[in-house]
This record gives sequence, C-alpha cells and structure tokens, in this order.
Amino acid sequence: MGNLYIGLLHFPMRNRRGEIVATATTSMDVHDIARTARTYGVVRYFVITPLASQQQIAWRIRGFWTEREQAMEGSRRGEALELVMVATSLEETLSWIEEAEGDCPILIATSARPQQVQCISYAQLKDVVHHEERPAYIVFGTGWGMADELIETCDYVLPPIEERADFNHLSVRAAAAIVLDRVVGDR
Amino acid sequence: MGNLYIGLLHFPMRNRRGEIVATATTSMDVHDIARTARTYGVVRYFVITPLASQQQIAWRIRGFWTEREQAMEGSRRGEALELVMVATSLEETLSWIEEAEGDCPILIATSARPQQVQCISYAQLKDVVHHEERPAYIVFGTGWGMADELIETCDYVLPPIEERADFNHLSVRAAAAIVLDRVVGDR
Repeated sequence: MGNLYIGLLHFPMRNRRGEIVATATTSMDVHDIARTARTYGVVRYFVITPLASQQQIAWRIRGFWTEREQAMEGSRRGEALELVMVATSLEETLSWIEEAEGDCPILIATSARPQQVQCISYAQLKDVVHHEERPAYIVFGTGWGMADELIETCDYVLPPIEERADFNHLSVRAAAAIVLDRVVGDR
Repeated sequence: MGNLYIGLLHFPMRNRRGEIVATATTSMDVHDIARTARTYGVVRYFVITPLASQQQIAWRIRGFWTEREQAMEGSRRGEALELVMVATSLEETLSWIEEAEGDCPILIATSARPQQVQCISYAQLKDVVHHEERPAYIVFGTGWGMADELIETCDYVLPPIEERADFNHLSVRAAAAIVLDRVVGDR
C-alpha cells in the first residue's frame, strides 16, 4: 500500500442552485477531518481553497491546535492538525504529492450523487489501494458537490454512502470518516 | 430488526483529569449526528444532559432547522433534526423507549478505551441487531468518556474504532458515523 492523502475542496463547487461557487472553510471541517485522518494513517490532509482570506482561516485553525493546545496536558489534537496543509487548487496538491512521492497519485472522487463515470465500489477500492504502490488521494467536496468537470478528471469515483437511503445528506465530516473506515479501516 | 435509537450523553462523563463532570452541548454534535442518524434509519436521537441551560441550547438548535431552515429551498436538514429529542438522563430515555416500544431496548455502549466487560465485536453486534426484534439503543459519550458505572449497566460494549491505531481521538461526530455504518450500513 502506498501513502494515503485526502483533500477537502472548496472550489469549484456547486451551490444549492447548481451554480459554481467557492464555499466557505469551516473550523469543524478542518478539525474533525484532521482527527479522522490521523486515526486512519493519512499522511497529509489538504484544505483547498483559492480564496486568500479562507486560506488564512484554515492556517489559523491549524495553528491554534499545533501551537497552543498541544502544550496543554494530555491533549494530542495538535498531532492531527499537523497533517493539515492549505492549498490553492487541486492541481497544486497533485504537484505537491508527485514531488513528495516521485509518482502521481491514484485520484479518487467522492460524491453524494450517483455518477456515471469511473465508478468503483468501496471493496474494489480497498483492494486497489492495498495492492498498489502508488499513493492514493481521496478528495471530498463541500457545498452541493463537486463540479462535473472535476469529477471527470479523477481515476475513480466512489458511490454515495448508503445509496439506497431516502435521505442522503451526511455532513462531509461524517462522510470522510465513513469513507476512510471503509477503504482503510481494520474492521 | 427492531427500531434503532442512539443517544449522546453529557453526564456522567470524565474530564481530562478523570473527574466526573457534565460536558457542554455543542451545535455540531446535535446537527451532524442528527444527519447521520437520519441517513442510517435511526428513529430517535436523544441528546442527554441534566443541565436545563444545555437542554435549551439543544432544543434551540433543533428548532432553528425544523422551524426556519426547513422552509428554505431544497434543504432537508429539518428532517434530520426532527429526530432529536432532549432528555435529562439515560434512565429517562430508557423509559421513553420502553413506553414507545412495549419492550426495553438492547443497550450498547461505545468507548474510545478498551473495556473488560460485555465486549462485542461490530460484526457480532450487526448480527444481533439484525436478528433481534427488540429495539437497539447505542449510546455515545462526550468529554473524556463515560463513567465506568455507566458502561457497566449496558448489555454490550463496542471496542474502540481502529483499536490498533496509535492515535485514538476521533470526534464523537466521526465515531457515531463510523459505528452506525459498521452496525447498520449496507457496505
């Protein structure tokens, strides 16, 4: 198995009317997903937004836990937040991984909507990730989902979680936890 | 399979020094876990705290989404938040379930620390839940975990998620998502 990376995309996303927008960074997305990433052995968690003000917010949240909280008794949250790296675009993170690894990663999209292209099941992806030496990079969207052009650039697309449920509105924090557990968990 | 209930306990919890405390209710715990609960077919999500001020906070969060957001275009978060019921104690929720169901539920604790009593694996619990007609009730803790006396009153205790990881500090929001996916997900 190669190294595992994850990314949280804030652009190009859709809003509730299907328009392409940059969504807002939230402290809980940075914080919760970093803790999940650390638990599942992810080596880097990219928070991706083209907006400088939003990048600052993400860095500030990281710094709060890595520079202040870490000094407090018994807390290890800083170890999780240290995985966070803020980036401007998906392309920038792909270049970063390729430079660090000497190989481009297998790029995997997640979606709350069934997709027609590059579909792979969780069991199949688990198998691919465990047998490949290349790094794997799973990206999550915010807002009302990733733009179609973005999904089409990925090697694989995972199906919605609980596809058969009549309610499919998990938080991205919950979705990221479930996806990592399904793909690399020791269940 | 009987109906599935979940509860989020804020008392009696341990703080980082092991003392028994009532923890604070957070909007994200109410909100994220309600969305996860709705996705996995949970019939009621109890937010349990003995503090009146904290109960009011939880009711207010529920009301924000069920009375205001639900009217907005395309949002279905209200459907998730409607599952939330605020309660004073675990005993009160057990009575509530028993009255609604005509039977007491199988009570299942979760813990981030390995426990010595009533241990059950995720696969075993999935099997029990699917073959039992009694309702199942999974409770999650906050802060630094449930008091031992509380864990001992449960029928079963689930092991920590990713027991072998060297970092075991998932948010309760992520833990609840993973536990429900493991026990009732269609993976």
